[in-house]
Amino acid sequence: MGWGDLGAFGEPSKETPNLDQMAAEGMLFLDFYTANPLCSPSRAALLTGRLPVRNGFYTTNGHARNAYTPQDIVGGIPDSELLLPELLKKAGYVNKIIGKWHLGHRPQFHPLKHGFDEWFGSPNCHFGPYDNRERPNIPVYRDWEMVGRYYEDFKIDLKTGEANLTQLYLQEALDFISKQQASKQPFFLYWAIDATHAPVYASKQFLGTSQRGLYGDAVREIDDSIGKILNHLQKLGITENTFVFFTSDNGAALISAPKQGGSNGPFLCGKQTTFEGGMREPAIAWWPGHIPAGGVSHQLGNVMDLFTTSLSLAGLQPPSDRQIDGIDLLPVILQGKLIDRPIFYYRGNELMAVRVGLYKAHYWTWSNSWEEHGKGIDFCPGQSVSGVTTHTQEEHTYLPLLFHLGRDPGEKYPLSFASEEYQRAMERISGLVQQHKATLVPGQPQLNVCDQAVMNWSPPGCEKLGKCLKAPESDPKKCFWPH
Amino acid sequence: MGWGDLGAFGEPSKETPNLDQMAAEGMLFLDFYTANPLCSPSRAALLTGRLPVRNGFYTTNGHARNAYTPQDIVGGIPDSELLLPELLKKAGYVNKIIGKWHLGHRPQFHPLKHGFDEWFGSPNCHFGPYDNRERPNIPVYRDWEMVGRYYEDFKIDLKTGEANLTQLYLQEALDFISKQQASKQPFFLYWAIDATHAPVYASKQFLGTSQRGLYGDAVREIDDSIGKILNHLQKLGITENTFVFFTSDNGAALISAPKQGGSNGPFLCGKQTTFEGGMREPAIAWWPGHIPAGGVSHQLGNVMDLFTTSLSLAGLQPPSDRQIDGIDLLPVILQGKLIDRPIFYYRGNELMAVRVGLYKAHYWTWSNSWEEHGKGIDFCPGQSVSGVTTHTQEEHTYLPLLFHLGRDPGEKYPLSFASEEYQRAMERISGLVQQHKATLVPGQPQLNVCDQAVMNWSPPGCEKLGKCLKAPESDPKKCFWPH
Repeated sequence: MGWGDLGAFGEPSKETPNLDQMAAEGMLFLDFYTANPLCSPSRAALLTGRLPVRNGFYTTNGHARNAYTPQDIVGGIPDSELLLPELLKKAGYVNKIIGKWHLGHRPQFHPLKHGFDEWFGSPNCHFGPYDNRERPNIPVYRDWEMVGRYYEDFKIDLKTGEANLTQLYLQEALDFISKQQASKQPFFLYWAIDATHAPVYASKQFLGTSQRGLYGDAVREIDDSIGKILNHLQKLGITENTFVFFTSDNGAALISAPKQGGSNGPFLCGKQTTFEGGMREPAIAWWPGHIPAGGVSHQLGNVMDLFTTSLSLAGLQPPSDRQIDGIDLLPVILQGKLIDRPIFYYRGNELMAVRVGLYKAHYWTWSNSWEEHGKGIDFCPGQSVSGVTTHTQEEHTYLPLLFHLGRDPGEKYPLSFASEEYQRAMERISGLVQQHKATLVPGQPQLNVCDQAVMNWSPPGCEKLGKCLKAPESDPKKCFWPH
Repeated sequence: MGWGDLGAFGEPSKETPNLDQMAAEGMLFLDFYTANPLCSPSRAALLTGRLPVRNGFYTTNGHARNAYTPQDIVGGIPDSELLLPELLKKAGYVNKIIGKWHLGHRPQFHPLKHGFDEWFGSPNCHFGPYDNRERPNIPVYRDWEMVGRYYEDFKIDLKTGEANLTQLYLQEALDFISKQQASKQPFFLYWAIDATHAPVYASKQFLGTSQRGLYGDAVREIDDSIGKILNHLQKLGITENTFVFFTSDNGAALISAPKQGGSNGPFLCGKQTTFEGGMREPAIAWWPGHIPAGGVSHQLGNVMDLFTTSLSLAGLQPPSDRQIDGIDLLPVILQGKLIDRPIFYYRGNELMAVRVGLYKAHYWTWSNSWEEHGKGIDFCPGQSVSGVTTHTQEEHTYLPLLFHLGRDPGEKYPLSFASEEYQRAMERISGLVQQHKATLVPGQPQLNVCDQAVMNWSPPGCEKLGKCLKAPESDPKKCFWPH
């Protein structure tokens, strides 16, 4: 989803009454970011509280390339990383992930090996259908074992867009919450639904209900589900000790628009880019009785903050043996404080841009290559800002392009290099960037090697279902990341 | 102001708490339009309930050219037009205009000759300062006579952007309301402030208070003033019989961005164009006790509807001897009904586009000329949609470009001409357009002739102030309208 996909954030069909209500009862974050404009690294950052360049969710196969975890990826979340559920366990939490994991699908990367107690969902995107010869269909797991595959046991009709997955994920969520409440155990639920990711889907009852087409149907179903989850918490009487946060893992994928892509509101470009449209996210914190209703925060926030904030809520300290990039947002949420902190915009192994206060400095600009663009792959459809949405990687490290996001949220008007304002702002930003770079210890890159042998041929449990497939011979290669 | 300038409409700095509150207490219109992407024709349409092509506020000097009422315009609102205040008078209303009139500044066009009882404001935009030789400074009137001129008696500091005009207009509004309430007379107040029109200004207390720069300061002052007006109505205990409507006369002028231009949210282009950014407006209806709080309407609305709706509120019928384009919105506002009606997008003498339901058909596309664009005049900065934001006037009358504004609010993806959806939608639209064109009786164009002799040299009252200037000889010419 993108920043502009919710009514509360100005989506013109205003079809998210439950999320809008959640915002009215909670706190809206207007300046909230992901750690990366792509799914896997963003999710790895959320669960580790660390930038992908630290936790290994990046590639060095090319400069400033987006990478993720397709079926043939060899890497995944390293054991050395400490995930939020692993830490929450120490405080007695039961942890469940529902939906897309995306931190690696080989056995050692299984979510139940990284702190989760339960899982219902899939390790990869719901791409397909595949022929199970060149490429297997993506499995769906319950806990340790697969229970079927997409397009086989879990239907997705690519023609109509019908799939009942969000309903399955919703029921899983409600059941888990009920169960934990019955046993009086504290819980952490990571509800990682993916209906707005192409191929976009919605249940029959939501198909055709949106002004916005199939994408809007998917948004409506997610909105409806979130309403049901919050309502469930209310019915169980546990809203006052349940903290809920809604956000997205990257900006709307404008390449999939208009049929399968959402809105980044007034911001530039979308998913895959380090412009605001790729990285600024809708975000709402909800905790009745604690968070003042109708609050609006300009805190620069990041998905990595959810790691630190959740630990704080559980009375835990973040690990002290490693650099944690997330900050504790509780003073912001509960006391309305503003914490001064930069936002780093990475694309793969490169720091593309930095936001400090209302200023954003671009050290590198790139949308995608001319070659890709010529094939119709466009991350900025209908938008073109000369010298900014460039189709070659443009270096500005010696004289960064500087934007004032208050006056110019769309990143259209770089400040004059000669202006006093430029000098003043860059002085501060340069210091922060130097410090960041000087102390950065990059992790071992996990997204460099691909091998068809590691695909989901025979996930655990396949034998019970008669769904084991024969893997081809191992043939490790450098993964190809085009943008 | 543009659609995207209010927090309630997704402006990312969310600095309009009073307007957002007004929306929360009233009804938000998400699909509300002006009758023209430029000030004078839009205001003429608001006050007559009729399209500019009917009421004469257009030009035939060129095809599809925007025209307005600069100082040297010879025309203005014809006597044959019936203005809202003229009609409201019959129901005992006292009518006041505060701010910019813009329907002609020659004596016969004076607002007090067209139904208003009181006026404080100016006939034209606050451009200047002028030298009073080539061109006089714009006068400010109180009722029949001028009380000074901009940049002389009413200061606007172009360097700092400081001017206290909005405060003057606010005080006028509060005083007028108090006076009418004291005398128990029903009133119509047309509060036509212009702080967000370049040169943008704000009072000292608001300067530098916005994240958005001077433009944001102006928005904050307007927002604050509207809060004070609503609060005043509350204090007087007359909210239950006072209907308040907030809207704008055209989309944000992106040519003035980023320093003096606002936001049209996710929409294409801005003022001067018939894309959504030029004509879709923020709109809020407020009437506590009558309008359900927190309502949101997808009614296709238009500034011309305020004419008919206001008459309806006063128990009056619209004139039956002429075509009225505005509809009565009360069933929408009070009973949540949706009325099926088209929106016509005119630029000068040409019907550029039509919206019916969620479909918008472009019969002509044009942003502005290559020549102007080459000089840096850009109505769509950072936006470029191939074949849509054209720099030559492109005719599509035989095969209109069709957009679905639900799936594609940004007008980026025209529907395939071959699709069934295209055929079905165009069938309906074509019928409505044919009917509209067949019955249209264009008014005498008022914006064709310009003459330096008619400028504000010696407005009534100038002699008392010693501010009469000598007019040059009459030299009537065709006005030049570049876009």
